Amino acid sequence: MTSLFERLKTAAADAWQAYTHHEFINQLEAGTLPQAAFRHYLVQDYLFLLQFSRAYALAAYKGQTFADVAKGQAGLLASLEESELHVRLCAEWGISREEMAATPEHPATVAYTRYVLDTGMRGDLLDLHVALSPCVVGYSEIGKRLAPAIQQQPDHPYAEWISEYASEEVQQLAAEAIGYIDHLGERFLSEARFENLAQIFATATRMETAFWQMGLDLGQE
Amino acid sequence: MTSLFERLKTAAADAWQAYTHHEFINQLEAGTLPQAAFRHYLVQDYLFLLQFSRAYALAAYKGQTFADVAKGQAGLLASLEESELHVRLCAEWGISREEMAATPEHPATVAYTRYVLDTGMRGDLLDLHVALSPCVVGYSEIGKRLAPAIQQQPDHPYAEWISEYASEEVQQLAAEAIGYIDHLGERFLSEARFENLAQIFATATRMETAFWQMGLDLGQE
Amino acid sequence: MTSLFERLKTAAADAWQAYTHHEFINQLEAGTLPQAAFRHYLVQDYLFLLQFSRAYALAAYKGQTFADVAKGQAGLLASLEESELHVRLCAEWGISREEMAATPEHPATVAYTRYVLDTGMRGDLLDLHVALSPCVVGYSEIGKRLAPAIQQQPDHPYAEWISEYASEEVQQLAAEAIGYIDHLGERFLSEARFENLAQIFATATRMETAFWQMGLDLGQE
Amino acid sequence: MTSLFERLKTAAADAWQAYTHHEFINQLEAGTLPQAAFRHYLVQDYLFLLQFSRAYALAAYKGQTFADVAKGQAGLLASLEESELHVRLCAEWGISREEMAATPEHPATVAYTRYVLDTGMRGDLLDLHVALSPCVVGYSEIGKRLAPAIQQQPDHPYAEWISEYASEEVQQLAAEAIGYIDHLGERFLSEARFENLAQIFATATRMETAFWQMGLDLGQE
Repeated sequence: MTSLFERLKTAAADAWQAYTHHEFINQLEAGTLPQAAFRHYLVQDYLFLLQFSRAYALAAYKGQTFADVAKGQAGLLASLEESELHVRLCAEWGISREEMAATPEHPATVAYTRYVLDTGMRGDLLDLHVALSPCVVGYSEIGKRLAPAIQQQPDHPYAEWISEYASEEVQQLAAEAIGYIDHLGERFLSEARFENLAQIFATATRMETAFWQMGLDLGQE
Repeated sequence: MTSLFERLKTAAADAWQAYTHHEFINQLEAGTLPQAAFRHYLVQDYLFLLQFSRAYALAAYKGQTFADVAKGQAGLLASLEESELHVRLCAEWGISREEMAATPEHPATVAYTRYVLDTGMRGDLLDLHVALSPCVVGYSEIGKRLAPAIQQQPDHPYAEWISEYASEEVQQLAAEAIGYIDHLGERFLSEARFENLAQIFATATRMETAFWQMGLDLGQE
Repeated sequence: MTSLFERLKTAAADAWQAYTHHEFINQLEAGTLPQAAFRHYLVQDYLFLLQFSRAYALAAYKGQTFADVAKGQAGLLASLEESELHVRLCAEWGISREEMAATPEHPATVAYTRYVLDTGMRGDLLDLHVALSPCVVGYSEIGKRLAPAIQQQPDHPYAEWISEYASEEVQQLAAEAIGYIDHLGERFLSEARFENLAQIFATATRMETAFWQMGLDLGQE
Repeated sequence: MTSLFERLKTAAADAWQAYTHHEFINQLEAGTLPQAAFRHYLVQDYLFLLQFSRAYALAAYKGQTFADVAKGQAGLLASLEESELHVRLCAEWGISREEMAATPEHPATVAYTRYVLDTGMRGDLLDLHVALSPCVVGYSEIGKRLAPAIQQQPDHPYAEWISEYASEEVQQLAAEAIGYIDHLGERFLSEARFENLAQIFATATRMETAFWQMGLDLGQE
């Protein structure tokens, strides 16, 4: 049976393609992405993760049962842990935690993160997780597709990033996110809502695309 | 066709009966309700209206379209106007605005108002309006049922209160609220949600019952 | 220096006394509290903990920094773990998780929990933690004061409950909560806010008192 | 005495200059702004107003008193009325309400609007109104500064827009917004908060700048 996530992706096929095959990703795959672009991306992604951890906290707040709250708590904990991984990755690139925390958020960072938070607060758990899904699932799709690039080129400059998102753990988290959206769909989805959910999904996907574009643009300055 | 509101009322038939036929209302109808009970009720109802106006503001915040926001705005304006009517009614009973504002909220006041606000914030517009409906529709039902009492007894001590809630305007607002829940149901209701909505409706109804009981209890102190 | 918590407690001295020396607690200390009262309390406290875990999730959502979010996450995790402890304690009293989850929330449970959640959502982190504090700190005060009762009476019927809240761990959590309110006060407190915070604290304390009273009342039915 | 708004503007002087003297505004003043740029701006501004009306609804929800709620209600009503004015202005440019409602929100529109909404929900009334102020006050500053341009050039292509924001009514609303922030400052401001408020103000101002840039960019496509 087609998952709700697949239906949403199909409804936003062009936006999804633009996001997951963005020039930033193409250059990252080829190893030709300017390091300045990648560094700007890394710093903004740190600021992004703070807001994403708040989004998982919101998911816990929105829970109806202990199981819902515990699910949100797990996502919150995972995003806090991911931010620590991120700090270590950035340290290897010579970017300190203090430098990241002191960097102003770019409009593209603000756009996606606050869109997720506001969509989740305005709507219900299903709205929130649909808005989160382009990030969670998109990164896993990109990681999987780019994995061969680092097998062919062992000294690939972005090997660590690619291997992280190609990892079994990330693939597993994405599969769980897809399954959880189906679970929430069974509880909350009326067919009349689909169009609105598809709009949320498409908007969130477009905000991700703008996030890649920001990386490219800042890398050229 | 059965309205969604009717389905919810049927699912909570005992709670609805306990609320709309509470001893406070029976005594109010008979004109035997102690004035102290009525006065305590009036003061708490003023505190209640502040939170209810916030709930309609929340409905506007939760809107997806200008029409949704405007609908919330209309409810917000109406509840602010109702609070001014309330101030005038209380002035006739010798209760000043300052006295009311300085009175601590009773747990029963806190329970219903914050239940509505939290239910609406956690869930969606449908959850919010279902939680509001026992108040809006229940008062109109009670007003209509009690109207003969003041026709038979022109110097009924609670004539003004009864005539307000029996008024064409209040009956009309209740009919609109029922219609609006149907409208929201068409947009947001999945059958899987019904049980949860029924629980919200029943809980809100029980909180209204506790509010009447507070009036009786405080009147005996 | 006087902690902000002490200032709030002093400003609500009567309400604090009424809460921490409530008849429910006096009878619990003496071991004369009817078991039915205690059982009703236990069931409602389980429903209470679900909402409290949501309140800690809200604290994480409200965070401005990773440290704030992590602090909320720790509280959320602790409250989820406390609910599991609670399930085990209730099992010893023959009360199953299913029975608790199926019990309707009493108005007193709704009043305190939703007051905390709404106060926190309407205001800031300081408002939220002030509203949470009568629970966290009050239980530790009560536990400490009642500890001698179980030393003198080894077969005290409520030994397990008293020893839990008298435990070093709970005392430590309360001390941390007091310290955290000071920390938040340094960030967010203007003297103009004190009166409002004192009202929040007093209201939350009164809601706790109503929660004990609920236990007594239900135990007599 | 220096208003809190002036302090915030001074702390973000460069960002304020970049926003209020953006190339979009310079070209608009000179009448050389491409009509395509202005049209894209108008459409996005309509989508912007929907979210802004939600932000005023949030202000009403966040109120502590009837006066606070009524203040939010007035802002909500004004923003709904502004959206209707906007629809009429757009009709003159041949843009229908349906066309606007069907246009996807640009990331720059999402960024500013959701930043305001999330900042207000996370924080308190002061945070919310500080985040709203670059829009309310900035437009009035720009309108006033550009007013001579339409006096000198009666057939100025953007005369209607300039005259609207130069109007006495808009100048008055901005003065009230500045005064209201002072009022909120007296209630909620601790000096420890100033730095954070300044960051909110600067971020909101930068998001406004990105909104003008969006107009320029879309006009060139």
